[in-house]
Amino acid sequence: MHRILLREVVIDAPRDTFPATRDFWAAALLADAHQVPAHPEFTALLEPAARSWVGLQEICGGPARYHLDIETDDVAAEVARLVGLGAEQVAEGRTWVVLRDPSGLLFDDVPAESPWFAERAREVG
Amino acid sequence: MHRILLREVVIDAPRDTFPATRDFWAAALLADAHQVPAHPEFTALLEPAARSWVGLQEICGGPARYHLDIETDDVAAEVARLVGLGAEQVAEGRTWVVLRDPSGLLFDDVPAESPWFAERAREVG
Repeated sequence: MHRILLREVVIDAPRDTFPATRDFWAAALLADAHQVPAHPEFTALLEPAARSWVGLQEICGGPARYHLDIETDDVAAEVARLVGLGAEQVAEGRTWVVLRDPSGLLFDDVPAESPWFAERAREVG
Repeated sequence: MHRILLREVVIDAPRDTFPATRDFWAAALLADAHQVPAHPEFTALLEPAARSWVGLQEICGGPARYHLDIETDDVAAEVARLVGLGAEQVAEGRTWVVLRDPSGLLFDDVPAESPWFAERAREVG
Protein backbone atom coordinates (compact mmCIF):
# COMPACT_ATOMS: atom_id res chain seq x y z
CA MET A 1 0.00 0.00 0.00
CA HIS A 2 1.28 3.45 -0.83
CA ARG A 3 -0.02 6.98 -0.81
CA ILE A 4 -0.30 9.71 -3.45
CA LEU A 5 -1.10 13.40 -3.74
CA LEU A 6 -1.24 15.75 -6.72
CA ARG A 7 1.48 18.13 -5.61
CA GLU A 8 2.39 20.66 -8.22
CA VAL A 9 1.72 22.37 -11.48
CA VAL A 10 4.89 23.02 -13.47
CA ILE A 11 5.02 25.63 -16.22
CA ASP A 12 7.51 24.46 -18.84
CA ALA A 13 8.77 27.32 -21.01
CA PRO A 14 11.51 27.36 -23.64
CA ARG A 15 14.56 29.54 -23.11
CA ASP A 16 13.46 32.45 -25.28
CA THR A 17 10.27 33.07 -23.32
CA PHE A 18 11.37 31.70 -19.93
CA PRO A 19 12.31 34.98 -18.21
CA ALA A 20 9.07 36.73 -19.24
CA THR A 21 7.03 33.66 -18.32
CA ARG A 22 8.71 33.32 -14.91
CA ASP A 23 8.23 37.00 -14.12
CA PHE A 24 4.61 36.91 -15.29
CA TRP A 25 3.60 33.96 -13.11
CA ALA A 26 5.44 35.25 -10.07
CA ALA A 27 3.56 38.55 -10.34
CA ALA A 28 0.27 36.89 -11.31
CA LEU A 29 0.34 34.60 -8.25
CA LEU A 30 1.83 37.23 -5.89
CA ALA A 31 4.91 35.08 -5.30
CA ASP A 32 8.69 35.33 -5.34
CA ALA A 33 10.54 33.31 -7.97
CA HIS A 34 13.44 31.29 -6.55
CA GLN A 35 15.78 29.38 -8.85
CA VAL A 36 16.63 26.01 -7.31
CA PRO A 37 20.45 26.02 -6.79
CA ALA A 38 20.94 22.27 -7.17
CA HIS A 39 18.76 22.10 -10.29
CA PRO A 40 18.98 25.51 -12.01
CA GLU A 41 16.52 24.55 -14.73
CA PHE A 42 13.82 24.66 -12.04
CA THR A 43 12.39 27.81 -10.47
CA ALA A 44 10.00 27.55 -7.52
CA LEU A 45 7.34 30.14 -6.79
CA LEU A 46 7.49 30.87 -3.05
CA GLU A 47 4.19 31.44 -1.22
CA PRO A 48 2.00 31.63 -4.34
CA ALA A 49 -1.71 32.42 -4.14
CA ALA A 50 -2.42 28.72 -4.54
CA ARG A 51 -3.04 25.65 -2.42
CA SER A 52 -0.52 23.48 -4.27
CA TRP A 53 3.05 24.16 -5.29
CA VAL A 54 3.63 25.97 -8.59
CA GLY A 55 6.99 25.87 -10.32
CA LEU A 56 8.65 26.61 -13.63
CA GLN A 57 11.08 24.62 -15.74
CA GLU A 58 13.22 25.92 -18.60
CA ILE A 59 12.98 23.39 -21.42
CA CYS A 60 15.38 22.96 -24.31
CA GLY A 61 13.01 22.18 -27.13
CA GLY A 62 9.40 22.25 -28.14
CA PRO A 63 6.59 24.64 -27.28
CA ALA A 64 5.59 25.73 -23.79
CA ARG A 65 3.36 23.38 -21.84
CA TYR A 66 2.14 22.71 -18.33
CA HIS A 67 2.77 19.42 -16.60
CA LEU A 68 1.60 17.92 -13.31
CA ASP A 69 3.58 16.22 -10.55
CA ILE A 70 2.02 13.44 -8.49
CA GLU A 71 4.02 12.80 -5.31
CA THR A 72 4.11 9.42 -3.62
CA ASP A 73 5.92 7.45 -0.94
CA ASP A 74 6.57 4.61 -3.43
CA VAL A 75 7.48 5.79 -6.94
CA ALA A 76 7.96 2.30 -8.39
CA ALA A 77 4.59 1.06 -7.13
CA GLU A 78 2.79 4.18 -8.27
CA VAL A 79 4.36 4.09 -11.75
CA ALA A 80 3.28 0.45 -12.08
CA ARG A 81 -0.25 1.39 -11.03
CA LEU A 82 -0.44 4.32 -13.45
CA VAL A 83 0.87 2.24 -16.36
CA GLY A 84 -1.76 -0.35 -15.50
CA LEU A 85 -4.37 2.40 -15.70
CA GLY A 86 -3.27 3.36 -19.21
CA ALA A 87 -0.32 5.71 -18.84
CA GLU A 88 2.84 5.30 -20.88
CA GLN A 89 6.28 5.62 -19.29
CA VAL A 90 8.36 8.14 -21.23
CA ALA A 91 11.61 8.69 -19.32
CA GLU A 92 13.32 8.40 -15.96
CA GLY A 93 14.66 11.50 -14.23
CA ARG A 94 17.06 11.66 -11.29
CA THR A 95 14.40 10.67 -8.75
CA TRP A 96 11.22 10.82 -10.81
CA VAL A 97 9.51 9.11 -13.74
CA VAL A 98 7.94 10.92 -16.70
CA LEU A 99 4.67 9.52 -18.07
CA ARG A 100 1.99 10.39 -20.62
CA ASP A 101 -1.75 10.12 -20.03
CA PRO A 102 -4.08 8.54 -22.65
CA SER A 103 -4.40 11.87 -24.50
CA GLY A 104 -0.64 12.37 -24.61
CA LEU A 105 -0.26 14.86 -21.75
CA LEU A 106 2.94 14.72 -19.73
CA PHE A 107 3.03 14.28 -15.98
CA ASP A 108 5.64 13.11 -13.49
CA ASP A 109 5.61 10.71 -10.59
CA VAL A 110 7.92 12.14 -7.92
CA PRO A 111 9.01 11.27 -4.37
CA ALA A 112 6.92 12.83 -1.61
CA GLU A 113 8.36 16.15 -0.44
CA SER A 114 5.55 18.59 0.27
CA PRO A 115 4.85 19.61 3.88
CA TRP A 116 1.23 18.52 3.59
CA PHE A 117 1.84 15.03 2.18
CA ALA A 118 1.51 13.26 5.55
CA GLU A 119 -1.81 14.92 6.25
CA ARG A 120 -3.38 15.03 2.80
CA ALA A 121 -2.09 12.10 0.78
CA ARG A 122 -4.60 9.34 0.00
CA GLU A 123 -3.88 5.66 0.30
CA VAL A 124 -4.13 3.62 -2.89
CA GLY A 125 -6.54 0.89 -1.86
CA MET B 1 -8.66 45.80 -4.11
CA HIS B 2 -9.55 42.26 -5.05
CA ARG B 3 -8.45 38.78 -4.16
CA ILE B 4 -7.19 35.82 -6.20
CA LEU B 5 -6.41 32.13 -5.79
CA LEU B 6 -5.14 29.51 -8.23
CA ARG B 7 -8.12 27.19 -8.08
CA GLU B 8 -7.98 24.41 -10.57
CA VAL B 9 -6.09 22.40 -13.11
CA VAL B 10 -8.24 21.51 -16.12
CA ILE B 11 -7.31 18.63 -18.42
CA ASP B 12 -8.54 19.50 -21.93
CA ALA B 13 -8.89 16.43 -24.12
CA PRO B 14 -10.36 16.07 -27.62
CA ARG B 15 -13.41 13.91 -28.14
CA ASP B 16 -11.61 10.81 -29.39
CA THR B 17 -9.46 10.45 -26.27
CA PHE B 18 -11.79 12.12 -23.76
CA PRO B 19 -13.40 8.99 -22.23
CA ALA B 20 -10.06 7.22 -21.72
CA THR B 21 -8.49 10.40 -20.36
CA ARG B 22 -11.37 11.03 -17.95
CA ASP B 23 -11.32 7.46 -16.69
CA PHE B 24 -7.55 7.51 -16.33
CA TRP B 25 -7.42 10.69 -14.22
CA ALA B 26 -10.35 9.64 -12.05
CA ALA B 27 -8.57 6.38 -11.22
CA ALA B 28 -5.13 8.00 -10.97
CA LEU B 29 -6.38 10.58 -8.43
CA LEU B 30 -8.73 8.16 -6.60
CA ALA B 31 -11.75 10.29 -7.51
CA ASP B 32 -15.21 9.97 -9.01
CA ALA B 33 -15.81 11.68 -12.35
CA HIS B 34 -19.00 13.77 -12.39
CA GLN B 35 -20.21 15.39 -15.61
CA VAL B 36 -21.52 18.90 -14.88
CA PRO B 37 -25.22 18.87 -15.90
CA ALA B 38 -25.44 22.55 -16.81
CA HIS B 39 -22.22 22.43 -18.83
CA PRO B 40 -21.80 18.88 -20.14
CA GLU B 41 -18.44 19.63 -21.75
CA PHE B 42 -17.03 19.82 -18.20
CA THR B 43 -16.41 16.87 -15.90
CA ALA B 44 -15.40 17.45 -12.28
CA LEU B 45 -13.28 15.01 -10.30
CA LEU B 46 -14.91 14.63 -6.88
CA GLU B 47 -12.63 14.32 -3.85
CA PRO B 48 -9.40 13.88 -5.80
CA ALA B 49 -6.08 13.19 -4.07
CA ALA B 50 -5.20 16.84 -4.52
CA ARG B 51 -5.39 20.11 -2.62
CA SER B 52 -6.92 22.04 -5.52
CA TRP B 53 -9.79 21.19 -7.82
CA VAL B 54 -9.07 19.07 -10.88
CA GLY B 55 -11.47 18.93 -13.80
CA LEU B 56 -11.69 17.84 -17.40
CA GLN B 57 -13.04 19.56 -20.50
CA GLU B 58 -13.90 17.96 -23.82
CA ILE B 59 -12.51 20.21 -26.54
CA CYS B 60 -13.54 20.31 -30.18
CA GLY B 61 -10.24 20.88 -31.89
CA GLY B 62 -6.54 20.78 -31.37
CA PRO B 63 -4.35 18.55 -29.25
CA ALA B 64 -4.85 17.79 -25.55
CA ARG B 65 -3.53 20.36 -23.11
CA TYR B 66 -3.76 21.39 -19.50
CA HIS B 67 -4.98 24.82 -18.48
CA LEU B 68 -5.16 26.66 -15.16
CA ASP B 69 -8.05 28.59 -13.59
CA ILE B 70 -7.38 31.58 -11.37
CA GLU B 71 -10.46 32.47 -9.32
CA THR B 72 -11.16 36.00 -8.15
CA ASP B 73 -13.85 38.18 -6.61
CA ASP B 74 -13.40 40.75 -9.40
CA VAL B 75 -12.86 39.21 -12.85
CA ALA B 76 -12.65 42.54 -14.71
CA ALA B 77 -10.05 43.98 -12.33
CA GLU B 78 -8.02 40.79 -12.37
CA VAL B 79 -8.06 40.53 -16.16
CA ALA B 80 -6.87 44.13 -16.39
CA ARG B 81 -4.06 43.37 -13.94
CA LEU B 82 -2.98 40.22 -15.79
CA VAL B 83 -2.98 41.99 -19.16
CA GLY B 84 -0.87 44.70 -17.58
CA LEU B 85 1.57 41.99 -16.46
CA GLY B 86 1.93 40.67 -20.02
CA ALA B 87 -0.99 38.31 -20.62
CA GLU B 88 -3.06 38.45 -23.79
CA GLN B 89 -6.86 38.23 -23.66
CA VAL B 90 -8.03 35.48 -26.02
CA ALA B 91 -11.79 35.06 -25.51
CA GLU B 92 -14.69 35.63 -23.17
CA GLY B 93 -16.68 32.70 -21.79
CA ARG B 94 -20.02 32.77 -20.03
CA THR B 95 -18.59 34.05 -16.78
CA TRP B 96 -14.85 33.75 -17.38
CA VAL B 97 -12.08 35.21 -19.54
CA VAL B 98 -9.51 33.16 -21.44
CA LEU B 99 -5.95 34.49 -21.52
CA ARG B 100 -2.48 33.45 -22.70
CA ASP B 101 0.73 33.85 -20.71
CA PRO B 102 3.94 35.21 -22.33
CA SER B 103 4.90 31.73 -23.56
CA GLY B 104 1.48 31.13 -25.11
CA LEU B 105 -0.06 28.92 -22.41
CA LEU B 106 -3.78 29.19 -21.86
CA PHE B 107 -5.35 30.01 -18.52
CA ASP B 108 -8.72 31.34 -17.39
CA ASP B 109 -9.79 34.01 -14.97
CA VAL B 110 -13.00 32.80 -13.31
CA PRO B 111 -15.40 33.98 -10.59
CA ALA B 112 -14.61 32.74 -7.07
CA GLU B 113 -16.46 29.51 -6.27
CA SER B 114 -14.21 27.21 -4.28
CA PRO B 115 -15.02 26.55 -0.61
CA TRP B 116 -11.54 27.69 0.46
CA PHE B 117 -11.49 31.01 -1.41
CA ALA B 118 -12.49 33.10 1.63
CA GLU B 119 -9.76 31.61 3.74
CA ARG B 120 -6.95 31.18 1.25
CA ALA B 121 -7.28 33.88 -1.40
CA ARG B 122 -4.61 36.59 -1.40
CA GLU B 123 -5.31 40.27 -1.78
CA VAL B 124 -3.79 42.01 -4.78
CA GLY B 125 -1.89 44.88 -3.15
